[in-house]
Amino acid sequence: MDRSKTFLIVGLGLLGGKYAQVLSGKGYRVLGIDTDPDAVAYARRRDYIVEGLAGGDPAPLLAQADYVIFGLYPTALLQWVEACGHLLRPGTLVTDVSGVKRGVVEPVQDRLPQGVEFIASHPMAGRETSGITHSAEVDFAPANFIITPTARNTPAAVDWCRDLAETLGFARISVLSPAEHDRMIGYVSQLCHAIAVSLMCASDNTELARYTGDSFRDLTRIARINDKMWAELFLWNKDNLIGEIDMFSAALGSLREKLAADDREGLEEMFRLSTRRRQAFDKK
Amino acid sequence: MDRSKTFLIVGLGLLGGKYAQVLSGKGYRVLGIDTDPDAVAYARRRDYIVEGLAGGDPAPLLAQADYVIFGLYPTALLQWVEACGHLLRPGTLVTDVSGVKRGVVEPVQDRLPQGVEFIASHPMAGRETSGITHSAEVDFAPANFIITPTARNTPAAVDWCRDLAETLGFARISVLSPAEHDRMIGYVSQLCHAIAVSLMCASDNTELARYTGDSFRDLTRIARINDKMWAELFLWNKDNLIGEIDMFSAALGSLREKLAADDREGLEEMFRLSTRRRQAFDKK
Repeated sequence: MDRSKTFLIVGLGLLGGKYAQVLSGKGYRVLGIDTDPDAVAYARRRDYIVEGLAGGDPAPLLAQADYVIFGLYPTALLQWVEACGHLLRPGTLVTDVSGVKRGVVEPVQDRLPQGVEFIASHPMAGRETSGITHSAEVDFAPANFIITPTARNTPAAVDWCRDLAETLGFARISVLSPAEHDRMIGYVSQLCHAIAVSLMCASDNTELARYTGDSFRDLTRIARINDKMWAELFLWNKDNLIGEIDMFSAALGSLREKLAADDREGLEEMFRLSTRRRQAFDKK
Repeated sequence: MDRSKTFLIVGLGLLGGKYAQVLSGKGYRVLGIDTDPDAVAYARRRDYIVEGLAGGDPAPLLAQADYVIFGLYPTALLQWVEACGHLLRPGTLVTDVSGVKRGVVEPVQDRLPQGVEFIASHPMAGRETSGITHSAEVDFAPANFIITPTARNTPAAVDWCRDLAETLGFARISVLSPAEHDRMIGYVSQLCHAIAVSLMCASDNTELARYTGDSFRDLTRIARINDKMWAELFLWNKDNLIGEIDMFSAALGSLREKLAADDREGLEEMFRLSTRRRQAFDKK
């Protein structure tokens, strides 16, 4: 990645802030925009960015940017593109960090000016925390980075996005269509969060905290959740997530049935199947 | 705990083997019985026990034992007591390791001879593995040890059991009734296992393994499960577990409804509740 290029990060949250931190640390010129003056001030103070803006006209910063990264939730991303997308210079390469892709990627591509290429991507490095003050805790090395091109993207933009991911330190980079991405994320991430949240909401058993072991803690760790962001992610992917919830509920219902019927052999069969499948997830 | 005493471990599995290892290591005389000659040979070879028996008449070993520990699944425990309980000497103190208590503790107390006291307990130190060859991996230090006395138990036996737990290295020792124990274990352990197993059984998504992160791996780690033992534990506690599954399913159903209805505020409220409750589990 050409070190003379200037990055503009729009949205200095947990991930936008981390992008700014890593890219600045590697010698790139990084600018930042956020609606929250504290986030911009924090980024300036830590030298994550050399110039920042909270409110006001973004045109002067956009005019300097070779590469733009949207660190915004899907709804805010669409709103920003609607309001300011026309200010992007032709030749600018643009990506994002958002956790759902269908319903976001093509509308953003529609709204950007001719000559501005939006190549969507998802750094799967979220945490229970949010905000730029927690950016330093994010670790890209073990996380997946997914590039989700559409028919409108050029191979050169996909290569740039892969180069960006490598520069950021991601070891595992994949390319999926927006639809494949959303189906995958509905299962490996959103369903797990829905389960953990439901387990915590099912009953107030906090008095049992002293008896909990690793199993319980591991399973419910992700029940600490950023309410605004996850409501967005769930709603943007609701068809996939509802499908996954229904498949999971059917399996749990079948376990309950076997239990009620004293079907020992049926239970043991489920346990053997789950053990076999889970082993496949250990090997990777 | 008096070092001149002799322990007999009936059932040299993962936990029975670990008890034998720790107690021998601390200088106690430990004997062992198992139906599997390999388990007995392993325990002898590793000096977990000084004398062992696989099949045959247990009377000579029972005659030497001051303390007996049943490292058996509930059904096998009841069968053993039915067949051999009368051979225990008056004055013997007896405990177990089984993961459910109602339906086990009182029948065992009923069947033991006058003067033999059975004080039930549950070392919550299970793992995904089983068998004495994995005993060395078990770590008692961070685990809970629950003593579950009934009205028939003496304070002296409860004290002995607490002393045993300390000798074994448990830092967290509690006393609960069998009913309280089973309700607690239905929530903190069995429901979590039922969820993890159902998630794995819901669909064959092993091709998604490369995209999974910590959330998914943490949540499903316990889907690798000992089929025979967990079928036992689930069935012995089925009323509690079915109740917990129903409460959990209702919460997940409510999340699904909010999602289908685009109820953003309702989802955010669930996320805030789960975050608040989960924090209580972090503090302990």
